[in-house]
Amino acid sequence: MSQYEFVPQVPYGTRDFLPKEASQKRAVEGALAHLFASWGYDEVVTPTIEYLETMAVGAGNNLDQHMFKFFDKNNRILALRPDMTTPMARVAATRFKESPSPMKLFYLTNVFRYEQAQAGRQCEFYQAGVEIMGVSEPTADAEAIALAVEAMLKSGLQKFQIGLGQVDFINGIMEQCTLSLSQRQQVKHAMVTRNLVGLDEILENSCLPQGEQKVLKNIPLLHGKQEMLKQAYGMVTNDKSHMALNNLAAIYQLLESYGVAQYVDFDLGIIRDFDYYTGMVFECYTPGLGFPICGGGRYDNMLNSFGMNSGATGFALGIERVLLALERQGIGDIPNCKDVYIGWGNDRLVAAIGQAETLRQSGQSVEVALTPQSQIEAESSQKAKGYTKLVYIE
Amino acid sequence: MSQYEFVPQVPYGTRDFLPKEASQKRAVEGALAHLFASWGYDEVVTPTIEYLETMAVGAGNNLDQHMFKFFDKNNRILALRPDMTTPMARVAATRFKESPSPMKLFYLTNVFRYEQAQAGRQCEFYQAGVEIMGVSEPTADAEAIALAVEAMLKSGLQKFQIGLGQVDFINGIMEQCTLSLSQRQQVKHAMVTRNLVGLDEILENSCLPQGEQKVLKNIPLLHGKQEMLKQAYGMVTNDKSHMALNNLAAIYQLLESYGVAQYVDFDLGIIRDFDYYTGMVFECYTPGLGFPICGGGRYDNMLNSFGMNSGATGFALGIERVLLALERQGIGDIPNCKDVYIGWGNDRLVAAIGQAETLRQSGQSVEVALTPQSQIEAESSQKAKGYTKLVYIE
Repeated sequence: MSQYEFVPQVPYGTRDFLPKEASQKRAVEGALAHLFASWGYDEVVTPTIEYLETMAVGAGNNLDQHMFKFFDKNNRILALRPDMTTPMARVAATRFKESPSPMKLFYLTNVFRYEQAQAGRQCEFYQAGVEIMGVSEPTADAEAIALAVEAMLKSGLQKFQIGLGQVDFINGIMEQCTLSLSQRQQVKHAMVTRNLVGLDEILENSCLPQGEQKVLKNIPLLHGKQEMLKQAYGMVTNDKSHMALNNLAAIYQLLESYGVAQYVDFDLGIIRDFDYYTGMVFECYTPGLGFPICGGGRYDNMLNSFGMNSGATGFALGIERVLLALERQGIGDIPNCKDVYIGWGNDRLVAAIGQAETLRQSGQSVEVALTPQSQIEAESSQKAKGYTKLVYIE
Repeated sequence: MSQYEFVPQVPYGTRDFLPKEASQKRAVEGALAHLFASWGYDEVVTPTIEYLETMAVGAGNNLDQHMFKFFDKNNRILALRPDMTTPMARVAATRFKESPSPMKLFYLTNVFRYEQAQAGRQCEFYQAGVEIMGVSEPTADAEAIALAVEAMLKSGLQKFQIGLGQVDFINGIMEQCTLSLSQRQQVKHAMVTRNLVGLDEILENSCLPQGEQKVLKNIPLLHGKQEMLKQAYGMVTNDKSHMALNNLAAIYQLLESYGVAQYVDFDLGIIRDFDYYTGMVFECYTPGLGFPICGGGRYDNMLNSFGMNSGATGFALGIERVLLALERQGIGDIPNCKDVYIGWGNDRLVAAIGQAETLRQSGQSVEVALTPQSQIEAESSQKAKGYTKLVYIE
């Protein structure tokens, strides 16, 4: 291979963050870490690699086809984590068994999924998220949603809307119906992918009575504020669905106390793409992006699978999606933090080093030239590199 | 597998950072990112995964046995990056070809190497580092070392010492000698691993004249300040070694201008464990840790391999090693940032939410209870969770 012909590429679905984007990413992540800590959440960092059997306890079934897998030296299967909720549940159940309840944890890290790559959907991507473990009441769900709203705002987003659903609303209806397990899965898949035409088709081929077909077809349209919730009570007769609606009403009332209810609509068609959700689920959308920038929900059984009997709720936010939304809404630019470029003529580097130290101590960012320059060359470097000010030492 | 018998573990050589360590890690990384930016360095984030052929251009030969490798869907070999210098060189050569020279870049991220795990040496570990690309003069080497010293200080370390060597000092001697390539590699390996007994053995079996054996045996002992450098001039006669010493003298003179020379000793036995180094090399040690917490050097050929004709120098610092050194020196504790725990009696959550918002706006970190508590229960939670103050709303 001739060295000049080798043009290295990055693997499919991965990317470099060049300085502008990397500094926006750092700014958003820093703001979120500060926000989560100010709400009493503790950060946890877990390994990039997990045993496949650990992931299988949580998100594994949904993500099996999407995981980067390989073998360790003892031929056990490893996976790049495709999700952070499962590792966080592992940590909680194995390392925090004796900790005071509830646990409020956060993470800021990358996850990995083989996907068809497109803007906002890469095989390696960054997430910020929180988990509340040890509380089964709607108080925890409301805090998670209120914190998600604050996270959007602290990221700089102004326009966004949260859709709030409850998986037991749909589960209650499905259990009433005479659908086979495979049909139920087809119905759920059509709802997750918002494939309304497909949903109609599955239901029309299902032998379900027209009334039940109509209820199921209607679910994705059940979107609105409290009046819609009242209508939904009238559409279903089973206890599970009614309790799900009660749960949503209780969460919404708390969201009013948090002062964030204007960001939240009920959307009973939301069921999310992980099997582990057991209660409320939500997704946050922003204009112009066709995928949620944030999503989460209650997952009461996962900790149990790791040997800890505790309810849990949480959310994750996609960092690249936030950056994309900020860019599309024209609000992504962070202020230039390049203050002073110091150029110097022959033998004046020592003076430049001293000057740089003084300026840095006063809080300015300073680049010192590493080779002698004329004043004209130094001005040209200063401008090309984006520094506000030039100091030239001749 | 019964769910209660499943005790999930993390893969060999990986670990969880629990809250205290995770917040120390975030504090150190934040301080370093700020420092690097204040010196005019731009952050770059590269994928966790690279094609093996990209890594082979740089660190690959040294790390081939230590890489986590797997296949992509097209059966190309991927590797978890074992090093950041190679990906940074890839970015510089492919994405920054038209950027104003020199490029000053930094990164803060994890890298992966199969190793025998021990304290401070894990298979997944975190590095902070900088690269200066486009300058072949000692000015760049001196800036890198001065910035490394600042990075140690900003991390909170007080006791540390940098050893400064130059690979051409040894290369010059080796080229004079009648050693075979295999013998040269054995000699270098013994020096990298500081195996002085092994070095003696190799040399005694080498048929080298006694005089040359003595010079080579002596190299690991060439450690000191400027007087030692003067002695070293007398020990060698070849131009390459003399130019290496001139280079070190020029770098050291600049380090005096930076006011950091007291942290630096010459140590001519340092040659580092990567083949890509071509000039000065350095390592930073701290009392009580048997491995460097920071190291780097000049690598003038790597960018060339990616099609860009540019000299380069830089360093990387091990975040876990810094945390370990801080802990061992008893200076790792960061201040508690848990201010207020708010407990509440029946139906008083709404008041608690309002109070929390007010306190957070005043800059305090506040956890709100998610279930009603008596005042005694709330006090107990406050203490167990480490909050400085309790607010109880009854």
